Amino acid sequence: MRCLVTGAAGFIGSNLCDFLLSQGNEVLGLDNFSTGKEEFVADAKKNKKFSFEKIDLIDFGKAKTIFSKFKPETVVHLAANADVRFGLQHPRKDLEQGTIVTFNVLESARLASAKKFVFASTGSVYGEPEIFPTPETAPFPVQTSLYAASKLSGEAMIQAYSEGYGIKGYIFRFVSILGHRYTHGHIYDFINKLKENPKEISILGDGKQRKAYLHVEDCVKAIWHVLNHCEEKINIFNLGPDEFVDVNQSLDVICKFLNLNPARTYGGGTRGWIGDSPFIFLDCNKLKATGWKAQKTIRESVALTVDYLLKNEWVLKGKPQ
Amino acid sequence: MRCLVTGAAGFIGSNLCDFLLSQGNEVLGLDNFSTGKEEFVADAKKNKKFSFEKIDLIDFGKAKTIFSKFKPETVVHLAANADVRFGLQHPRKDLEQGTIVTFNVLESARLASAKKFVFASTGSVYGEPEIFPTPETAPFPVQTSLYAASKLSGEAMIQAYSEGYGIKGYIFRFVSILGHRYTHGHIYDFINKLKENPKEISILGDGKQRKAYLHVEDCVKAIWHVLNHCEEKINIFNLGPDEFVDVNQSLDVICKFLNLNPARTYGGGTRGWIGDSPFIFLDCNKLKATGWKAQKTIRESVALTVDYLLKNEWVLKGKPQ
Repeated sequence: MRCLVTGAAGFIGSNLCDFLLSQGNEVLGLDNFSTGKEEFVADAKKNKKFSFEKIDLIDFGKAKTIFSKFKPETVVHLAANADVRFGLQHPRKDLEQGTIVTFNVLESARLASAKKFVFASTGSVYGEPEIFPTPETAPFPVQTSLYAASKLSGEAMIQAYSEGYGIKGYIFRFVSILGHRYTHGHIYDFINKLKENPKEISILGDGKQRKAYLHVEDCVKAIWHVLNHCEEKINIFNLGPDEFVDVNQSLDVICKFLNLNPARTYGGGTRGWIGDSPFIFLDCNKLKATGWKAQKTIRESVALTVDYLLKNEWVLKGKPQ
Repeated sequence: MRCLVTGAAGFIGSNLCDFLLSQGNEVLGLDNFSTGKEEFVADAKKNKKFSFEKIDLIDFGKAKTIFSKFKPETVVHLAANADVRFGLQHPRKDLEQGTIVTFNVLESARLASAKKFVFASTGSVYGEPEIFPTPETAPFPVQTSLYAASKLSGEAMIQAYSEGYGIKGYIFRFVSILGHRYTHGHIYDFINKLKENPKEISILGDGKQRKAYLHVEDCVKAIWHVLNHCEEKINIFNLGPDEFVDVNQSLDVICKFLNLNPARTYGGGTRGWIGDSPFIFLDCNKLKATGWKAQKTIRESVALTVDYLLKNEWVLKGKPQ
């Protein structure tokens, strides 16, 4: 299969490219390196079936040309503004790098006659749901962050394209992803803080925010599995584990791994930041019914992520993303 | 109250401006006249409390300046691409005149310290729902048109702005609106067809598409009522009548008014066009619980619209919008 992957030098994108190549696919990776890293595509670049182009997908003309030349059967759109927490400081960023870029990629895919369009959405599109675990058919949600708003906009355009032009849509509502090449998030922040001061650590909110996390290997395998097993016009799947942990429990795993016991101080409130959802736990029965199953527990994933960061200190030293 | 209204020269916008002025408000109307008409703001322009500026709101710099100068307490954003049916012929139009313009208006409202933001969304955001009448809390929908996708994007950004910046959001999911200054839709098309050939009429779909319609007077009064009675962070309301008619029944009213009995031919299929929802009927109990009630029946509204168009033939002769 000819696959085009946007955000190919990012955390999830680079893992997906490696996996797609391992399955014998022809892969074209695109990235603007705003948060992606050259190092993450170094392995893929050794494979003859991989090609790569640096592009900011806000440039529709350039995107259209690249897509039409490569003629992908499947487009996997992962590129986005990854800076969820600070969305309110630059409100136009999610519109541009989220919504408008998604339109550009979708329209380029249509013009290049792509058959399938895969989109990385987020469990945050459920806002602050009242049903846990939250199913795909939860009540019509209210958005609480610009990041999730842009993801919902992307979902909506893909659905309309699917209805109007016949391209099959694959929408995955991700929980937070952990593992090899993890570059931002609470584990990243905690380790950097503990390296600076191993005796004390400050925690956003009350530390009781409950979140679900999935290992990136489970994530890319789920995408591949669904692409090969589901052929509806629109395929919408929650993507997460069957469990959750709170921030304190996650920190327990990190501290145990590091053999530290820092004093904990709390910022207070039930949310880490404005728009942060205090409880994310997705009902993934629809995905599991297709035969997919997460292989790693959250605690294993947290430990593997700490291990990765300690073995790749250059990632920790980069500017947080 | 200082109100800024976008799409002020449009069908609903001009009716709203007249109503807001009748309540003693200071009103600034904006329009780019893409589908709005000079004639529709002629009455308002006689009022000293009304001012008007021609602007395409895709120009953020200009929008920001106008908003900051007027300093509205309330912004009512009605401007949009009104061309729902032909969205697939120009997929970027709903992104630009829908989503991006809504962002520009929202961000301009924030920078000008507006307190309330009113948005004309659509019952089409429910896609093809399975629950009728459809409540605001219906299951997470799947979009079927680019128009509805852009409206959902607007809703989502407003919700995130409300959460993040504290501006109060008022989101109305409209059914189709009829009445004084109606400029496009099935009645417009039917009358033009019957003027050309009173003996035969072609109908999109099977004529059994069921739709709800509301008179524009009921619509603008509902907006005003909610603005004065609801003070939640986010106020989402379906806006429609307690009934629906099918296309054939609507045509019955038109034919009776015109004293015609044309032979009817059908395009076939259950939808008027790709992305058309075959059944729109909204549960408006949330709105009614605030004390608002529609004054006109659908059949009265259809008849009043036919009457308006016959008395204003210049509207029929304009290019359909």
